[in-house]
Formats: sequence, C-alpha cells, structure tokens
Amino acid sequence: MKKVYNFNAGPSILPRAAIENTAKAVLELGDSGLSLIEISHRSKDFENINNECIALWKELLNIPEGYHVLFLGGGASMQFCMLPYNLLNKKAAYCDSGVWAKKALKEAKLFGEVVTVSSSADKNYCYYPEIKDIPTDADYLHITTNNTIYGTEIHKDIDSPIPVVADMSSDILSRPIDVSKYAVIYGGAQKNVGPAGVAFVVVREDVLGKVQRQIPTMLDYRTHIGEKSLFNTPPVFAIYAMCETLKWVKAQGGVAKLAEINKKKAVMLYDYLDNESKMFVGAAEKSSRSLMNICFVMADQYKAKEEEFMNVTKAAGMVGIKGHRSVGGFRASTYNALPVEAVQALVDCMREYEKKNA
Amino acid sequence: MKKVYNFNAGPSILPRAAIENTAKAVLELGDSGLSLIEISHRSKDFENINNECIALWKELLNIPEGYHVLFLGGGASMQFCMLPYNLLNKKAAYCDSGVWAKKALKEAKLFGEVVTVSSSADKNYCYYPEIKDIPTDADYLHITTNNTIYGTEIHKDIDSPIPVVADMSSDILSRPIDVSKYAVIYGGAQKNVGPAGVAFVVVREDVLGKVQRQIPTMLDYRTHIGEKSLFNTPPVFAIYAMCETLKWVKAQGGVAKLAEINKKKAVMLYDYLDNESKMFVGAAEKSSRSLMNICFVMADQYKAKEEEFMNVTKAAGMVGIKGHRSVGGFRASTYNALPVEAVQALVDCMREYEKKNA
Repeated sequence: MKKVYNFNAGPSILPRAAIENTAKAVLELGDSGLSLIEISHRSKDFENINNECIALWKELLNIPEGYHVLFLGGGASMQFCMLPYNLLNKKAAYCDSGVWAKKALKEAKLFGEVVTVSSSADKNYCYYPEIKDIPTDADYLHITTNNTIYGTEIHKDIDSPIPVVADMSSDILSRPIDVSKYAVIYGGAQKNVGPAGVAFVVVREDVLGKVQRQIPTMLDYRTHIGEKSLFNTPPVFAIYAMCETLKWVKAQGGVAKLAEINKKKAVMLYDYLDNESKMFVGAAEKSSRSLMNICFVMADQYKAKEEEFMNVTKAAGMVGIKGHRSVGGFRASTYNALPVEAVQALVDCMREYEKKNA
Repeated sequence: MKKVYNFNAGPSILPRAAIENTAKAVLELGDSGLSLIEISHRSKDFENINNECIALWKELLNIPEGYHVLFLGGGASMQFCMLPYNLLNKKAAYCDSGVWAKKALKEAKLFGEVVTVSSSADKNYCYYPEIKDIPTDADYLHITTNNTIYGTEIHKDIDSPIPVVADMSSDILSRPIDVSKYAVIYGGAQKNVGPAGVAFVVVREDVLGKVQRQIPTMLDYRTHIGEKSLFNTPPVFAIYAMCETLKWVKAQGGVAKLAEINKKKAVMLYDYLDNESKMFVGAAEKSSRSLMNICFVMADQYKAKEEEFMNVTKAAGMVGIKGHRSVGGFRASTYNALPVEAVQALVDCMREYEKKNA
C-alpha cells in the first residue's frame, strides 16, 4: 500500500487500527460466520457494540448524568432542522461564524425568530466572532465550535445564560471540553469520530419536551433516547467503525493526550508560517486559529505559484491540501488520526519549495 | 469461516462478492493508499462510485426518464415523514397492510388528512388487503409492497387514478416492476440492496413542488435531486456496498433472473408446507404470500415444540428463523442473496424433525 499523507477535511484520515478491525468485521464479525453488515441490529452482538460505543463516548468526554448519546443518520445537516424542531419555541440565537453556522441558522428560521448574536462575515469569517449580549429570552444559543472552511475555532466552553447548542463536527474529541456547559453537542462523525453515515448527538434530557409543535417521530430526539438509537435500523457499519475509532482514542491516552499531540502538530505548522516563511501566510487571525484545519495562502507576490506548489505536495504523496474555494490557497486538516510525521513532511515540503522558489 | 444459513429479515444476507469487495475497499480503495472511508465525497473516485450506482439502479429497474434516484440517510422511517412533507397538500390515501404501513400512515397525519383505503388489521395482517375505491382527490396513494413481519406481498403494479408511492424496502430488486406506475419508490437498503445506513428513493420529478408548506432543506427531495445526493456528506460506505450489490445483481442476470430463483426458493418451502407437512402451517393467506419472507407456525397440537425446533435449526447453522413476536412461529427470509441450497437445508431440517416428532 503506497504511503499517503491524508490531509482531507472530511471524510478524513482515520486510525489504521480502526480501519483494519472494521474491514475484518465486514468479512466476518468475530467467529459468527456472518459479516458485520449481515447481522440483525436486534442481535446481542450489535446491542453490545452499540452499548460499548455509548459507554466510550461517556467515558472519553466525561459526560455527566442527564445526558444521552445518540447515533443518527442524515449527517449534521439533518441536525440543522432537527434542533429547532425540538428546541425552538419562539426565538433562538445563532453565532454566524461561517458557512455551516449560516446553514444551521437558515433552517432555524423555519421554526421561529432567529437572532444573529455575532458574525465574522465582514472579514470572510477569518476570525471567530466574539459572543456577547446573548438574549436571555431566546430558547438556546447555537455555535459552531470549529469552522472547517476558514480554519477558525473557539477555544473555550463559553458561559451563557441560556442553553448552548454546539455543532462540534470538526473538533469533537480533539480537546477536553466541559460537557455540562452545553445542552446539545452534535456533529457528523466523518472527521475525528468515524466514517460518514452517522451523526452523534449528545443531548441533556431536560431541554426536551418544551416546544408546542408536533414533531415527526424520526425527528424527535425523545424517540431515539427511548430506544438507544435503535428505534429503526441504525447505520450498523458506521457505528461499529466509530466504536473502533473511540477505542483507539482511549488507547492513545484519551482526549487530553490527543489534545497535546494536536497542539504540537498545529504549532509546528503555524510556527513555520509565522516565524520562518516569507512565502506562505496563515489565513485566519491568530487568536482564532483552529488546531484542526490550518488554512494558509501564498503571499501576494507568490500567488501565481499556488498551483505549482499544489502539484509538489501531490508528488510528495499528500492529498486534500487544496483550500476551500471560498478561502483559496491551502488547508491542512490535522485531525486526531493524522500523525505528527505528516505535518513535519508538509513543513519540510514547504520549506524546500520556498528555498528553491523564493 | 463457519457455514451459516442467514435467514435474517434485515439487515440480512448480502452477496459474498459484494462483502469481500467492500471489505477490500475499506482496507484500500483501488491503489489510492487510502481507505474507502477516508476519501472525500467530493473526490473523483467517489463521484464515479455514486454515478455508477445511480446508473445501475436505472438499468436494473429500467427506470424511465423523469425519475431521479437518491441515496439518503435515516432509513425508510425517515421517508415516512419526508414523503408527506413533500407530497401531501390536503389529503393522502394509505393502504394499511401491516405495522410498517401503519407507521408511515401515522406520520402523514401530521401533514394533512389521511384516508385508510384498505386494511387487513382485522386478521392480524395475514393477507394483502384489496385496494379499491381510491379517492381521486387525494394527493397520493401509499402502499407497502411487502410486509416483512407477516409475510404478505402485493404481486402486481396496481393501476391508480392518483400517484402511487410505494415502500419497497423488502422486495425491491426481487422481481421486475413497472416503475412508470409509481410516483415514488423508496426503502431501506438493508435487505436486497446493501447494508443498513442508506435509503433509496426513486422519485418522479413532476410530483414535487406542489405543496404549499416550507420544507427544511434536508427533507426536501429537490435539494438532493439537484446535488445527486451529494448536498451534504453521504453515507459513503453504504453507497459503495450498495453499488457492489447491484453489480452482483447484474452479474446474476438481472432482476428477472433473480425473480425466477426467488420463486423457486419460495415454492420449495411453500410446497412443503402445503402438500407434505402436517406439523408446519403457512401463516399468510395463500394468495398474499410473500416470496421474500416466508412465515410459518406449528399446527396447534405441536405448538409446544416450537422452541425445540428453533434450537434444532440453530444447531444446523441457521440464523434469523424466529418469527416476529406479533406473528410468532418462524420466518425464513429468502432475499436475493440467499442461495437455493439454504432453503433446501431448511426444508430438510423441517422434514427430518417432523419425521422424528410427529
């Protein structure tokens, strides 16, 4: 198998152990004589997998009593409407920190009044907007903790007078968080948690049941809480692969340990951008920089070389380096499973290119 | 790997070739150096898989122009609310042929008036109710073509003065159908089509855009039509495995050929029940019998032996034979991927048990 450095923004690199264990289970689950994708979701085997996965979530994030962990289909995008369906009675507050935050906000408007508490749209979302003056009469405040496209991240669990709902699709499990400060944490799995095809929802039970509207069964969190996400056939494969990924997180020493390594990776690249390079420039404002998605562009006088450098990274076995079209340039996604070595290889590649071409 | 006869009702047996090819792709997709679950859904590789899968659907079911094939998360249960969201303006007609039909009907009630055109609830759904007097002022008629729990199936494409919407979760691709007689065909993949984690929707474009309500983006079929199911990150693994399953269907000679084999399997078991056994009795009325889920019980005087026989089948390497609690007895699901040999083994097992115990 050829050596590749996978900097994809999502779906993205996953731990090799999780991939190999999952591939093995697709061939045969244990010694059952059946593939993982041929077993009943009502079987003892799958019940154990589902329970183990829930238990690992609770352990790794130190989730307090009163919260439920759900595994749902449809991705984080489905949560954009499921959330207001379940939580928005009259008014909700949204922080507009990027395209995904804006998409979440748009769906909420179908269900009630939406107030934008802060926005960084004025500078193409290159910083994380300060959240202040949260309206106390809103049902909840929605934030997107990491903005994959722009490489910005909020680095703290904010204090809020109203329940906080957080889309943590792209930084969940990358750093310790205080779950008790959130009413709902959700996201698509396909960055730090597992393959595409499942969304996670960590929800505090006491925020539910307060809206007046009738909620379709599948869109009601209480349906899935009551059945431990097995109301209907769940995405069996994706839950298995997620469980294997969480086992790997635990084996690495948990979220705090991964946070150290993630910081090391990010500092390596940001340091090069800030203190050494004259050719490459970080895209996001320093105080808002993401530890998961590191966006950079070429300085104005080198802009014409961006395509050439892209080809250089490709030749060096790097994939997924191209920046999102709305930012341009480059983006190195440095999720949990990306080894330090990959970032070192990228920095080496940048340094060498700069030496030859500056 | 030990020999198992997989009679699971769903998730259920899949073609071994599809399983092995998919497991291989989880380890490495082609010679990309990446796992299938690590590639971007915007990559050329995945675009090709998605396009091939759509093309195979169109080819295998001979889908006419004007229809779109969608791959969505959330399962068929999510479609129970998505359908009325998109199609129900004032009134819808539902055929109540079992638990799943009833669940679909219940969700529709949140969106408008619902008329039950026919029901077999009076006899615990042991027959497929005759559909007549379809209200011409309803927006659509909803049917469930195969009732997994009760082992009943409608064996024809009905004529209807209003658009027909069909849940074909458990008999899609098992027999040729005339797609032009349906406005929407949908279902969960996890029987004849692939693993759990993806639902298919075949929708005729001209039935959309006629409702007044605002539809959340992810619940609007038009969102997914416009993006070929890639509006957000799709269930990559499930689509790949589905594509491999469809390739197998094609390699077997297509749906018509599989229908012949499915008939052969069903006749083998039903013949034994009708013409030979005094111990086992078919559960569904003859004219309504499913070719996918064959339900049978023990005759009254042998009822006490059901558990013992269940253990005999287990010892013979059979899984998933237990009937649903609402029917009792036994259920042999004989989906496309189940070999004739498995049904023969079951009939042999029944015959031998009867000989010893009658």
